[in-house]
Amino acid sequence: MKKNLLVGQSGGPTAAINATLAGVIHTAINNKNIDCVYGCVNGIKGVLAENFLDLRKVFSENGNIELLKQTPSAYLGSCRYKLSDSTADIDKIIEVLEKHNIGYFLYIGGNDSMDTVSKLKDACDKKGIKVMGVPKTIDNDLMGTDHCPGFGSAAKFIATSVAEITRDAQVYDIESVTIVEIMGRNAGWLTAASALARITGTNSPDLIYLPEVAFDIDKFLDDVKQMVKERKNIIIAVSEGIKDKDGNYIADQSQIFKEDLFGHSQLGGVGKTLETLIKNKCGIKVRSIELNTPQRCASHITSKTDIDESFFIGGKAVEAAVNGESGKMMGYVRVSENPYKIDAKAMEISEIANAEKKIPASFITPSGNDVTEELVDYIFPLIQGESEVIYKNGLPVHLIR
Amino acid sequence: MKKNLLVGQSGGPTAAINATLAGVIHTAINNKNIDCVYGCVNGIKGVLAENFLDLRKVFSENGNIELLKQTPSAYLGSCRYKLSDSTADIDKIIEVLEKHNIGYFLYIGGNDSMDTVSKLKDACDKKGIKVMGVPKTIDNDLMGTDHCPGFGSAAKFIATSVAEITRDAQVYDIESVTIVEIMGRNAGWLTAASALARITGTNSPDLIYLPEVAFDIDKFLDDVKQMVKERKNIIIAVSEGIKDKDGNYIADQSQIFKEDLFGHSQLGGVGKTLETLIKNKCGIKVRSIELNTPQRCASHITSKTDIDESFFIGGKAVEAAVNGESGKMMGYVRVSENPYKIDAKAMEISEIANAEKKIPASFITPSGNDVTEELVDYIFPLIQGESEVIYKNGLPVHLIR
Repeated sequence: MKKNLLVGQSGGPTAAINATLAGVIHTAINNKNIDCVYGCVNGIKGVLAENFLDLRKVFSENGNIELLKQTPSAYLGSCRYKLSDSTADIDKIIEVLEKHNIGYFLYIGGNDSMDTVSKLKDACDKKGIKVMGVPKTIDNDLMGTDHCPGFGSAAKFIATSVAEITRDAQVYDIESVTIVEIMGRNAGWLTAASALARITGTNSPDLIYLPEVAFDIDKFLDDVKQMVKERKNIIIAVSEGIKDKDGNYIADQSQIFKEDLFGHSQLGGVGKTLETLIKNKCGIKVRSIELNTPQRCASHITSKTDIDESFFIGGKAVEAAVNGESGKMMGYVRVSENPYKIDAKAMEISEIANAEKKIPASFITPSGNDVTEELVDYIFPLIQGESEVIYKNGLPVHLIR
Repeated sequence: MKKNLLVGQSGGPTAAINATLAGVIHTAINNKNIDCVYGCVNGIKGVLAENFLDLRKVFSENGNIELLKQTPSAYLGSCRYKLSDSTADIDKIIEVLEKHNIGYFLYIGGNDSMDTVSKLKDACDKKGIKVMGVPKTIDNDLMGTDHCPGFGSAAKFIATSVAEITRDAQVYDIESVTIVEIMGRNAGWLTAASALARITGTNSPDLIYLPEVAFDIDKFLDDVKQMVKERKNIIIAVSEGIKDKDGNYIADQSQIFKEDLFGHSQLGGVGKTLETLIKNKCGIKVRSIELNTPQRCASHITSKTDIDESFFIGGKAVEAAVNGESGKMMGYVRVSENPYKIDAKAMEISEIANAEKKIPASFITPSGNDVTEELVDYIFPLIQGESEVIYKNGLPVHLIR
């Protein structure tokens, strides 16, 4: 008997999460074991509220799949909803899934979403429902998978922006420091990706500070003074999540909300903090730039490799569920380095949920203020290729729900 | 007798100032009245220091003109140098120009650079040297010209980013306010350009605040509360230069440097100021995003119309100088609205230097928190078309001096 498929999106958006959704829809519509293809609006909250969309209808139109791939943010909407510790939420979810004859439930998200998949597994097993996680996160901090869908596009945007900001900052023949604040709470992958700007023939960023290395203010000021002496006009890439040796965030003073629902601190403002520090302690002209949410939503410049892979893994997750996999996350395996080639594989979620993949020490220089060639080699293939973006009236076209 | 041509770039960079330089070089190299084509490094400072580049050499190579057109910032470097009130600087400049047999001096810049051109005119006249200004400014605040080279690309970047940020901000089904801080000290053209985001099918920005309208904190808070009630999740576009009815900058508290060399206040931080205000007074989830320098250097997404026009006006300035024009600025004349068509014309500089073109009242809604269709119609043609960007190894190629 044919079953229906339900797909949801969760957590912070990326420029590639809709490409994964497109891959799910494209494969599900064409799979003979699948009847209806539903999307739940605002993630698991849409399941609890039975807020479903019939995706066959939206995507019967030619071209909508291509437009979905270039639409930023999560087409289905997202949520940050932690399942209740009692069985109330899970019971309700199973009831809704059964009511709508859902045989396959795919959840596209980050660590927290994988936690949701993990919690649903046992209850789904009992009803023969296959539940699969599909990763997305610009942070690239999921365990298991070689890298995360969405990371390559964010990395490409960051490297491009840092290269452009560098040209801009070097226009005057004076000593100056430009701080670029990059996302990354505990893992510095995005900040490290700024090193790819060097592909364009610059030394910038001249200094890179990651959450993986304890931040020392005195050493930082010495680094800055020394580098300005050598190069006059410097660019510093800094992760929003840098901490001192005791684990206190450097940006602490600019915390806005104490905690979000998953217990993470909300960050922001490390760039301004360091800007003030340099101004007061070094007297050098200094500016800070926070790349902010465009890091995850700048769909006008995405990595073709990332978008193609994100589409691919969405399709693979559908196939895995139909083939009986459940309670797992699809992930990338790098099967060949030269030429670069990946495959998709269902991975055990227990090792993924609530864990974080940080930058290994071997990818960071001994000085702690730069990354190694090994790291650049790891990221390099992920930013290759440019997605062709469809424009209308001068702006990229977005598909709106 | 053939004369040499000298070209310089000045003021803050734009994504199109190198396209204008490319137009100057391309036309000058092919003009039979011109011998050598020199560039002065770091604007007028490079003239005073006799720091010249032989541009024929750099641009003899095939393709470099195309790469120059897509390189952000000012290829020749820039300066913010105010000519001394005594004749010392002017005497020195004339001496250097004569020494190098310069017959034509083109200066690409904004208001302050036109002031420099204006000051050089009489002394250049006496020596038969033609001096011409070529406009550039993302701010679009130069008088005379229909619009400014560089504005269209900045407008396209801003509208695209605001559309993307809107999708991102609307991903959760909760009340929230996102403030986008946009450049513009006294003229709100860039902030107004955010209204073009509506081309993508959104209401965003839901509110727009310009320096041309006195900012009232109580009215602002009322606007925000009302709009959140109506639309739940709203985007506010705000100019860095908004002022209260007495002319005081709202962002005043975050001034970093008191004054730059031309007597302008250095701004920054109005987004954070309003964010704090909304948080404290409305208790709504709020985030602010400063688009920052990428507004003027995001060469990976430029308006083809702007880049083509910027190239065109550079060439026209060379022709005008060779034809005997001097002490003027080349500007755009919109000769036809439908189809949109511009031409270039030499304009009197006395009406341009040290003046600012602001948004006329007819382009602003009576409520003072939005722009009219008339304004959208004015900007619309300027953001049309996408420049094809040459990438290598995953990043746009920049031409480095």
